[in-house]
This record gives sequence, C-alpha cells and structure tokens, in this order.
Amino acid sequence: MMKQYTVLTLFPEMIIQAFSYSILARAQKEGHIAINAINIRDFSKNKQRHIDDYPYGGGAGMVMQPQPIYDAYQSIPNEKRGRIIYLSPQGKRFTQSIAQQLSKEKNIVFLCGHYEGVDERVLEELHVEELSLGDFVLTGGEIAAVAIIDAIARLVPGVLGKEISFQEESFSEGLLEYPQYTRPPIFMGRKVPEVLLSGHHGNIAKWRKEQSVLRTKQKRPDLLQS
Amino acid sequence: MMKQYTVLTLFPEMIIQAFSYSILARAQKEGHIAINAINIRDFSKNKQRHIDDYPYGGGAGMVMQPQPIYDAYQSIPNEKRGRIIYLSPQGKRFTQSIAQQLSKEKNIVFLCGHYEGVDERVLEELHVEELSLGDFVLTGGEIAAVAIIDAIARLVPGVLGKEISFQEESFSEGLLEYPQYTRPPIFMGRKVPEVLLSGHHGNIAKWRKEQSVLRTKQKRPDLLQS
Repeated sequence: MMKQYTVLTLFPEMIIQAFSYSILARAQKEGHIAINAINIRDFSKNKQRHIDDYPYGGGAGMVMQPQPIYDAYQSIPNEKRGRIIYLSPQGKRFTQSIAQQLSKEKNIVFLCGHYEGVDERVLEELHVEELSLGDFVLTGGEIAAVAIIDAIARLVPGVLGKEISFQEESFSEGLLEYPQYTRPPIFMGRKVPEVLLSGHHGNIAKWRKEQSVLRTKQKRPDLLQS
Repeated sequence: MMKQYTVLTLFPEMIIQAFSYSILARAQKEGHIAINAINIRDFSKNKQRHIDDYPYGGGAGMVMQPQPIYDAYQSIPNEKRGRIIYLSPQGKRFTQSIAQQLSKEKNIVFLCGHYEGVDERVLEELHVEELSLGDFVLTGGEIAAVAIIDAIARLVPGVLGKEISFQEESFSEGLLEYPQYTRPPIFMGRKVPEVLLSGHHGNIAKWRKEQSVLRTKQKRPDLLQS
C-alpha cells in the first residue's frame, strides 16, 4: 500500500527536489511512496501574499499567521490526511524507533515553520505532534522534514529493495557497525585486516562482533548501559 | 570573511539545490558563505564510473572505495581545505554548541557516505571527525550535511541579518521558547492571551518567562536538570 507524505511549507520545490535523487526518487516512481508539497503562501488572503505578521506583545522577528496554515491543511483531500507533525526544536526527539512506528502510517502531514515561529492557536487547532531533529536550530522546518521523511520512507517495505542496512541492524542490537573494507587490499600502505581475507566465516563474524563492541565502548558507551 | 563549505558527495545537485532557497541562498549571493559540492564519482578510475565494491569478508550491500574519496579530497585547493567531517550515525551527536564552534571555522569539508559505508582506511587517512545528526538512519549523508551546514551557516555573522532567533536564545538560556501569537486576535474561537494585548512590557516579559519555564518542565525536563 502506497504511503502518502504531504508537506505544508513555504518552499515546496525544496522538498520535491530533495527527493528527486537516488533511492527515494525510485521509490516514488515505483509507487511505494508519494511525496507532495503544498505551498502555505497559496493560502494567503492578502494581495502581497504575506503569511506572517508581528508578534503580539512585541519582540523581534515575525510569526506565521494561523489562517494560511489552517487553510493549507484543509486543502488536503480527506483520504490523504493523517497524523500531523510540526517540526520544532521543542518537540520529542526523533529516533529510529519513532521512524519505525511512523513507517507504518499510511498518511503523514508535516508542517514546516519559519521566522520566529507559528501562531500557537493553529498548532492547537490542528492537534499537531511536535518532533525535533535534535538540540540545534535550523533556518526552517524543511530540512528536518526531509530528514524525517527519508528515515521513515526507507523503512517502508519495497523501498530499500536489496539494500539491507547494517547500520539499522546495529541500532536494533544496540551496537555500532563494525569497520568495512573493500578493494584494493592495500591503500596508502594500509592493509585490510587479515581475518577478512581468510574466508573463515566464523572468525570473520567473531572479529566483526568484537569490533562492534569495541567501537560502541569507545564512541557510544551510553548504548551499552541501557 | 567568507566561510567555505565543501561537500564530497555522490549527489552534488542535491546539495546545491538545498541551499538555493531563502536565507542561505541570499547569504551566498552576499558573499557571507560559499557552498561547493564535489562529485566523488568524477574520481572513479574505471569506465563504468563505479565508486563502490563488495565488502571484504562478505555481507550484504556495497562499500564505497577509498581511492575516489581520497582523490576527491585532494582536488580541493589547499586554501579551501580544513576540518573534514564525516556524517555517520556513529559520530558525536551534533548540537547547537557544536554549531557555534564550527561557525567560527573558515573552511569545512563534509564527506557524505552511501550504501553500507565507506572503507575504513580512507577515514583514517583523511583524519575525519565523525558527526551524527541523531540516533536514526538516513539513505545517505547528504541530508545530514545539509542540516549541519544550515545550522552552522545561519550563525555566521551577517547571514541572518535582522532575523534574530528566539529559539537560539532559548537554547542558550536552557529554556524552550514561549508561545507566539499574531493577527487575527481571534482565530477559530481562540483568543490571544490578554496580557499580550495589554501593552505592559513588564507583565508581558513575566508571562513569557513563566510560559518558557512551564513548557520546558512539560516537554524537556532534562534541560532544567543540567
């Protein structure tokens, strides 16, 4: 069943172009996923197509008005509506386990804010869920929406095809990925570890597991504690 | 002084297009930042322009070979080289405080991986620093590079112009942003809080601070503990 992702944004081309490469471009062509972008500015009711105004109570910057966002959401056909996610550094932090949950949803709507923020009332009215990419500030929600859609969509059955991901398996096991090597056997004087050339599957598996544990201890000891 | 960000990638157009909108497009035109993308595939030495091969020791997927990446890096003029950051879920987690540090660097090179990973030896040879956007898996490093460049570049003096960010101030103070409201005064029966219409600056500041503390308690109690 095709998954439908709809993005409410001031930069629809940015969303569409971000998914016009590589694996997710193919996933769209093959009908596993569909990504639409709706321009919030198209729902402005003034001639200048403004969608923001000064904040009540004063302060720097502009705030996105509730009406154009609400009307943009209402323009989505009923059968394509679903959970609506507002990208915000205030939200719950996005993780692989949230990606797995969201990859099961048929429809998801993403709302991308800009400027100083979005009028609080439209967030309440639309019952948005807030998700954050992390503790850092972006110029807008678009890049966060692209990252989250990418992480979700690659988990949709059929999207990755044969490209199984070790990284994902590593996260599920709570260990980081072991180091990878490919040709040539010697690069800049650096050799591929002997064991990988041995053809001994048991030893290779053992070495890789040891490397995963070692790296996790070095780089992410927090993963071993939980 | 102009900041130079160079991205080593299999999808250079994706990087360039992501920064052709809004604030960072203007920042490039005004000469505050320059963003270049170098196609790793251009440094393949075989006719098919392959840049990946099977992993030594077996396993699913393909591994990016060391030589095209190394040669792509070597093609960067000396005066544009600098710290080289490899986007990887194994890296140190990117935060606003790392963004602030990196915004002071004149040059940064970003290496975007794909497939199952990158040959370990080229990561060692180039002395990469690893940064992670968070505990989730993306189809490639490009989206992570775009997010990190966006977060860094907006902190470069002159880039944001008058668009001061409350969110950032909130992060530095360790509190989330208070709710924002703009016109109209009533939306879908929901009124703007009275205090914001009062014109009493002291009361407005007090209310906003209370709201920030309240939200931080509700949504991110961890920020209050540190």
